[in-house]
Amino acid sequence: MTAAAVPGIVDKARGGDPRSVGRLVSLVEDESPLLPEVMRALAPHAGRAHVVGITGSPGVGKSTSTNALIGELRRRGHRVAVLAVDPSSPFSGGALLGDRIRMGDHVLDPGVFIRSMAARGHLGGLAWTTPQALRVLDAAGFDVVLVETVGVGQSEVEIAGQADTTIVLLAPGMGDGIQAAKAGILEIGDLYVVNKSDRDGADKVRRDLRSMLGLAERRDEAWRPPVLKTTASSGQGVEDVVDAIEEHRSWLETSGELRRRRVRRARDEIETIALTALRRRWGSVGSGDRLDELAEAVVSGATDAHTAADELLA
Amino acid sequence: MTAAAVPGIVDKARGGDPRSVGRLVSLVEDESPLLPEVMRALAPHAGRAHVVGITGSPGVGKSTSTNALIGELRRRGHRVAVLAVDPSSPFSGGALLGDRIRMGDHVLDPGVFIRSMAARGHLGGLAWTTPQALRVLDAAGFDVVLVETVGVGQSEVEIAGQADTTIVLLAPGMGDGIQAAKAGILEIGDLYVVNKSDRDGADKVRRDLRSMLGLAERRDEAWRPPVLKTTASSGQGVEDVVDAIEEHRSWLETSGELRRRRVRRARDEIETIALTALRRRWGSVGSGDRLDELAEAVVSGATDAHTAADELLA
Repeated sequence: MTAAAVPGIVDKARGGDPRSVGRLVSLVEDESPLLPEVMRALAPHAGRAHVVGITGSPGVGKSTSTNALIGELRRRGHRVAVLAVDPSSPFSGGALLGDRIRMGDHVLDPGVFIRSMAARGHLGGLAWTTPQALRVLDAAGFDVVLVETVGVGQSEVEIAGQADTTIVLLAPGMGDGIQAAKAGILEIGDLYVVNKSDRDGADKVRRDLRSMLGLAERRDEAWRPPVLKTTASSGQGVEDVVDAIEEHRSWLETSGELRRRRVRRARDEIETIALTALRRRWGSVGSGDRLDELAEAVVSGATDAHTAADELLA
Repeated sequence: MTAAAVPGIVDKARGGDPRSVGRLVSLVEDESPLLPEVMRALAPHAGRAHVVGITGSPGVGKSTSTNALIGELRRRGHRVAVLAVDPSSPFSGGALLGDRIRMGDHVLDPGVFIRSMAARGHLGGLAWTTPQALRVLDAAGFDVVLVETVGVGQSEVEIAGQADTTIVLLAPGMGDGIQAAKAGILEIGDLYVVNKSDRDGADKVRRDLRSMLGLAERRDEAWRPPVLKTTASSGQGVEDVVDAIEEHRSWLETSGELRRRRVRRARDEIETIALTALRRRWGSVGSGDRLDELAEAVVSGATDAHTAADELLA
């Protein structure tokens, strides 16, 4: 794509053309030098979509739940985008698509856009890529953007930081309460959903979670996160989840928390972009590589990392 | 602690005094302003310890394996430190000690130092804290430092990046091969250990893993990671693991890979410290907060994050 093509593609993407939306997400994924221009063009049109993060350990039924949520959101007339971020991609070099296939119910629905995205991490990784991809989907006019990580555990908390509403999924038999507490999920969920609730132990998971939530130090006191039950494979309980998302959205707006969260996210995003620009500069100063020289000196014990960092900044 | 006390405590820590070692790790954990001085004093004395990262999903037996490894390393005459990093601590405000208690076999052994550490993330999180804590343990004369994350999944890959030798633990019944591939573990392990090998399915896990490793693109071609079997609770197979650690160490040294990995790590460490210093500066420029102002402008659509980042750097 050339710089001259940007305005046309941005216009089409704003009109909801899936191919143009996909191309803009690819620009984010590929860390294209055109991005500053794209983001400048999108800036006035973003801020409408409600971003819902979906987190949970492998096996809790994330993809099935996402699929069910799409269905219910569609029934309520919303246009829905799904962004599945694959943070293992620094290593594998591409998103694994298996999970996407399980969302196949909605492949032919023009009101649904589903996209896997690698977060290769050459630049700022997840923190660099995700907000920009979300801004593309937002400016493209989707009412709800569901964002989840593909793969095991990593970066769940980071993804939660990108969402307006974070849903934490659990399931019976996926590890005890202490595991949950360790993962930090008691602090990040706006909604908790015990999926596979037709299985033994679902009520116990729900009970344990409720009592742990009662003890946890929450980032906000005014919203008490509900603990719901679903069987996503049959759709059981999914309406209640969408109701709860809408309630949370209302609360975010009336309390001013929506704005606060978005300012915090924009802050992180600006910082990540600025720091990334600096790292690029440091990686290639003059003919040699200053950072490598300093690193050699640290390894040999000639200096220490703090002194080296001071020199780098000087 | 005062700046005047630093040299004395560093000397005692270098002599192996556990209380002094613990105090220095606490300085790292607390992001003390004394750290630059401490690190300067330690720099000439680090670089001897072999850092072994232990990763694996919850339930594979990480703590039991660590406990068994300590035992075998002690039998071979090594002084051993264990650093258990708790990346969930940005939220919980402290390390969970349950796992440590399971390593209780070695609590009274003066040749073993075990320490949990929060990675609160006010500064650079795990990437800021871990290398500095490892340098303390290294300079304190431990021959082997075992480093592992406490809690679920997150940052396993990051911890692997800090180690000379990374052990990836698996166990039967912990999820299929695709899960493993997704987590990126095929690329990070120097040694793979199927623990709980007395259980059904251990041989299948081992076979699957071997065939996936055969297909994976590895960061280095010269080292073929072995896939071993243990039953850590009985000690079965643990000698072989320590043999493999020693073989890997020899390979790292003769191939030059040890130096390369350490330079890469020092590079990351310097960069993290430098970027953290910048972030601190940005957080409090003048009387207002420039970053907050820019974030407000991004949220309202008046500007975009790239333009805001340029302004921040200007």
